[in-house]
Amino acid sequence: MAINSARSSVFGGRVAALAGGVGGAKLAHGLAQLLTPEQLTIIVNTGDDFEHLGLTICPDIDTVLYNLAEVNNPAFGWGRADESFHVLEETKRLGHDAWFMLGDKDIALHLLRRAMLDAGMTLTEVIYELARRLGVTHPVLPMSDQPVRTMIRTPEGEMPFQEYFVHRRTKPVMLGMRLAGLAEARPTAQVRAALDEADAVIFCPSNPFVSIGPILALPGVRERIARIPTLVISPIIGGRALKGPAAKMMQEQGLEVSALGVARHYAGLVDGFVLDNVDAGLADAVRALGVTPFVTNAIMRDRADRRRLAVEALGFVKRLTGAAGAK
Amino acid sequence: MAINSARSSVFGGRVAALAGGVGGAKLAHGLAQLLTPEQLTIIVNTGDDFEHLGLTICPDIDTVLYNLAEVNNPAFGWGRADESFHVLEETKRLGHDAWFMLGDKDIALHLLRRAMLDAGMTLTEVIYELARRLGVTHPVLPMSDQPVRTMIRTPEGEMPFQEYFVHRRTKPVMLGMRLAGLAEARPTAQVRAALDEADAVIFCPSNPFVSIGPILALPGVRERIARIPTLVISPIIGGRALKGPAAKMMQEQGLEVSALGVARHYAGLVDGFVLDNVDAGLADAVRALGVTPFVTNAIMRDRADRRRLAVEALGFVKRLTGAAGAK
Repeated sequence: MAINSARSSVFGGRVAALAGGVGGAKLAHGLAQLLTPEQLTIIVNTGDDFEHLGLTICPDIDTVLYNLAEVNNPAFGWGRADESFHVLEETKRLGHDAWFMLGDKDIALHLLRRAMLDAGMTLTEVIYELARRLGVTHPVLPMSDQPVRTMIRTPEGEMPFQEYFVHRRTKPVMLGMRLAGLAEARPTAQVRAALDEADAVIFCPSNPFVSIGPILALPGVRERIARIPTLVISPIIGGRALKGPAAKMMQEQGLEVSALGVARHYAGLVDGFVLDNVDAGLADAVRALGVTPFVTNAIMRDRADRRRLAVEALGFVKRLTGAAGAK
Repeated sequence: MAINSARSSVFGGRVAALAGGVGGAKLAHGLAQLLTPEQLTIIVNTGDDFEHLGLTICPDIDTVLYNLAEVNNPAFGWGRADESFHVLEETKRLGHDAWFMLGDKDIALHLLRRAMLDAGMTLTEVIYELARRLGVTHPVLPMSDQPVRTMIRTPEGEMPFQEYFVHRRTKPVMLGMRLAGLAEARPTAQVRAALDEADAVIFCPSNPFVSIGPILALPGVRERIARIPTLVISPIIGGRALKGPAAKMMQEQGLEVSALGVARHYAGLVDGFVLDNVDAGLADAVRALGVTPFVTNAIMRDRADRRRLAVEALGFVKRLTGAAGAK
């Protein structure tokens, strides 16, 4: 592949990054600081999406967009910085059970999305347009234009992911999960093209089950990724998820709650695995799975951390790409 | 009809009030101060409704609801008091041409309406529920559950009413109007029942063409009203509309821009006509149309004015009802 002068000196090829919400958005933001829009495409989970308060809510996509636009709220991990909640407060006074936090600026974006969807635009087209308006230049792609909805099976019955995660604060035991709508869903043409053209795939530090899992479940995605050097940034560090329910889910699924458990989950599909320093002791066990380990500081506390981890991940990608013939 | 002790001493019967937005909402609020929820039903124009920013906007219904709930913005005539515009400001930053003002509290109500409509509720059911949540006890009825959309013909082409009225500030000449959807629209069962049970009908001071007109255009409404003593509060005072485009519309339709022009418009259907003191000189001409005139101060500046005009209108209704056999 020709590498023009605008391309990153860290990595000259094309990267497809798979991302869920908070952790995924952080690394995507780091990668976007290093790679041109021609080099980096971010493919985002839509399994968390849901209809609420008359709006189509896309938590992972919006978190990625807000992070790339640098208008995200760093304290919450979701939503906008400098946010107010006047609308939500009034919905409460009008009797709405406002369990899902939506700030006023966030609602503005949701209203534009509602209007565009109602006008017949696909989700891909809508996100392209919203990204443009937010000043985001890197392609952010919904994994599918057909709704896929992650349903969590619990002893209290099946519930949509956001109901389980936000409303019920992951209290119910997860007995299993199901991707409603999967049978009718396909990866978009843009997602297929991004994977076909990618020199490497990076799984951002996102939940393996409810963030990366739905993307991998789409027809043809696994097969495409299996042909490309792929690395994973572990979302589990020191046996805990930095954010979200990944650790609890692994435990309830009877999996080992550790970076190694994540590596086992992906073994056979991926080539490299980034471990945090605290998990350095797992490197040999990861290697034994046929996955190349890379140990570094995998925690992203600020903008500089995001860039640093992205630099290291891309350096690792470069080495994996060089050794791609081994896959 | 039996009159129980809770009923108004001003008028003991049942009233169906037809209303558009600002002026109509003011008198509806005055009537609601005097009549019980069993005595007063407010039937509201939906011809101004439109889809915008992903929301179904019902300007007249909301203005009536907000006035009855006493949360309206008296300075604007539309929307909520103590309002902020954080969402709309952000939509502007995101490239939306925010020509229709929607405050944050207003948007809260619109989101609840959107969610209820999406859930399959009829507009009547939605407004019943929103009224309940706002603490409004008098029935507020959309004229129809089928969308009727007032389209204004202008030299620049046909445009929806709000586009003409708000976005274009009534600048284009009105060549005519059309009620899109009318052929499929019926008055709701609740509207039909309210008219069947009414002892009197009051046309609030609303635009005869775009506020009262669409209600009268629904099949069966005129026939029902023709059987009931009906009075009109003139929306034109001293040759001018207190609010809205009624005067400009009358002029462009080649009608006399005066309370008499309005009385002529309704002659044959209505029994009484309330003129402001400045139009006292028109009383004889109104009488010559076969319509009984009543002259008073018809301007409602504050809450007390609304109540006073409602008292006078109901006193006039009482006299008309007594003479109803003459119709």
